[in-house]
Amino acid sequence: MIQTPYLLFLGDAPDQLAAKVAQGIKDWRPDNAVGQFRMPGCGADVGIKDMTLAEAKAAGAKTLVIGVANRGGVISDAWKAVLVEALQMGFDVASGLHNLLRDENDLMAAARVNGRTLFDVRIPSVAYPIANGKKRTGKRCLAVGTDCSVGKMYTGLAMDAEMQKRGMKSTFRPTGQTGILITGGGVPLDAVIADFMAGAVEYLTPDNDPDHWDHIEGQGSLFHVSYSGVTMALIHGGQPDALVLAHEPTRTHMRGLPDYALPSLEALRDTALSMARIANPDCQVVGVSVNTQHMSEPEAIAYMAEVEERMGLPTVDTFRQGAGRLVDALAAI
Amino acid sequence: MIQTPYLLFLGDAPDQLAAKVAQGIKDWRPDNAVGQFRMPGCGADVGIKDMTLAEAKAAGAKTLVIGVANRGGVISDAWKAVLVEALQMGFDVASGLHNLLRDENDLMAAARVNGRTLFDVRIPSVAYPIANGKKRTGKRCLAVGTDCSVGKMYTGLAMDAEMQKRGMKSTFRPTGQTGILITGGGVPLDAVIADFMAGAVEYLTPDNDPDHWDHIEGQGSLFHVSYSGVTMALIHGGQPDALVLAHEPTRTHMRGLPDYALPSLEALRDTALSMARIANPDCQVVGVSVNTQHMSEPEAIAYMAEVEERMGLPTVDTFRQGAGRLVDALAAI
Repeated sequence: MIQTPYLLFLGDAPDQLAAKVAQGIKDWRPDNAVGQFRMPGCGADVGIKDMTLAEAKAAGAKTLVIGVANRGGVISDAWKAVLVEALQMGFDVASGLHNLLRDENDLMAAARVNGRTLFDVRIPSVAYPIANGKKRTGKRCLAVGTDCSVGKMYTGLAMDAEMQKRGMKSTFRPTGQTGILITGGGVPLDAVIADFMAGAVEYLTPDNDPDHWDHIEGQGSLFHVSYSGVTMALIHGGQPDALVLAHEPTRTHMRGLPDYALPSLEALRDTALSMARIANPDCQVVGVSVNTQHMSEPEAIAYMAEVEERMGLPTVDTFRQGAGRLVDALAAI
Repeated sequence: MIQTPYLLFLGDAPDQLAAKVAQGIKDWRPDNAVGQFRMPGCGADVGIKDMTLAEAKAAGAKTLVIGVANRGGVISDAWKAVLVEALQMGFDVASGLHNLLRDENDLMAAARVNGRTLFDVRIPSVAYPIANGKKRTGKRCLAVGTDCSVGKMYTGLAMDAEMQKRGMKSTFRPTGQTGILITGGGVPLDAVIADFMAGAVEYLTPDNDPDHWDHIEGQGSLFHVSYSGVTMALIHGGQPDALVLAHEPTRTHMRGLPDYALPSLEALRDTALSMARIANPDCQVVGVSVNTQHMSEPEAIAYMAEVEERMGLPTVDTFRQGAGRLVDALAAI
């Protein structure tokens, strides 16, 4: 686990979009961040207090989290100067960048000398077991998508937040870099060795109270030929009690695969449910989460009403409407 | 690629079963082996000429292949003495053992000094791409199983051998350690990083002549919760034109999963075909390959007749009957 609270490093981010990770932390775990650190020329602002390293240290920050994508895939000297100083001051440093902190000799040396830890959250830090398929106590919910990047992480975070608000027992279980940095822990599933994928998901979602819900972050899609194996491991390792169907209605083809059409929500429901029932015969599909960001509000509302009627399932955009109706559906099973 | 021909190292194998890899090479690629090397106390014999290292060298052997499982998971000093001498004499050494040759300092040193290569075929040697899903030329056949270890590799090797015999264009494409050692190359799919599994299968089965068949070695099962993600990547990365259903009728539960029943052949057919048609809408199920080793011959014949009638598909045990009828079915599509 990465120690919280964080100082969010925005560096010289050119714009707000580049600071997606920092924004996610601010939106979903505001208590995890004491402030933001911006360098000259930074074009991003996640709306929390600007702090120097010393101010963040005084405010109790334990870890500097790189909350921004780096330009050109290089950890620049300007960044390194800050990171080395942070390590010297006693911060750990955590990153989800493609290029690893541990591959930078100067950062490794500074971490070693100062007894600090570099967290590269794209790389598994655990030797996961092979899945054993044993029934676990507690409940699990997984969002499965018609495609990649349709809002599965957002849906899980929103459902977890709604359950927390209602005083229900709930944990968001990240399986990707952004989710891991938001919560401080998880499994970077797409970087796990094939034989251990399902076992990693079992490890991530252990026995729990009978009325506790894990919201497992979904990945890929059973219908996306590049990543379907990862999705399959989530379904079988997670042994979900509930599935939420996630969809983005304006996609004209599968992400990155111009020759592949998206499946219907019915095809997703039937395929995902039959696979899920191998691991958990009681699994149910409880709702539909639609990402309507590319639709006008009237379009979105009409579309969701049509889907709700057709599928017979509560259908919401969790960004526009919150996850209340999806949580109602979970609470009913 | 591992250079052929081989000298098959049987070491001090306690019995014939421990020499499964060497036996597979002898059975399926006899031209790949000039002889066998046995140490005092060896209880295995694959029925080819015993040779010293010098005799094998003179006969043209390029690589010493460890064709046997090691006792207690340790590469013993007695083995090492032979392996080091082989490296000094100019052999490469190849192994599918769990413990890696490269982790043994004395073997690494001998390989380096003598300019030889150690092949640990459990470990990928290529940075595989992410799958792009593009339609490839040529034909591909994949065996999918109701469970793990039901004869998928054997089925693929038998179909490839039958096609070779008929003068058809055909290649066996290994995805596991034994298959890789038998043919000299392939992808150790269960050791590939999750994101690259389907891409590794695309890499393994590239564009080919329109009338060429790849027989892709199957792994796991869509119904085996520990490994289903690997199977899924084979189905989507392989984009097979033909599926063969593989089954072992006497199993009382999924291998290693006492609480999981085997699926019916009908369930396997429907599930695998619907997943395969995402990547290749023309995919067909062409036959059933039954492993009847635990049945008497009359039982086996009655069982296969019943399956053939019920499924409407040619149903054979390729070990007892050869793969002729399966190849007939492929030739017809």
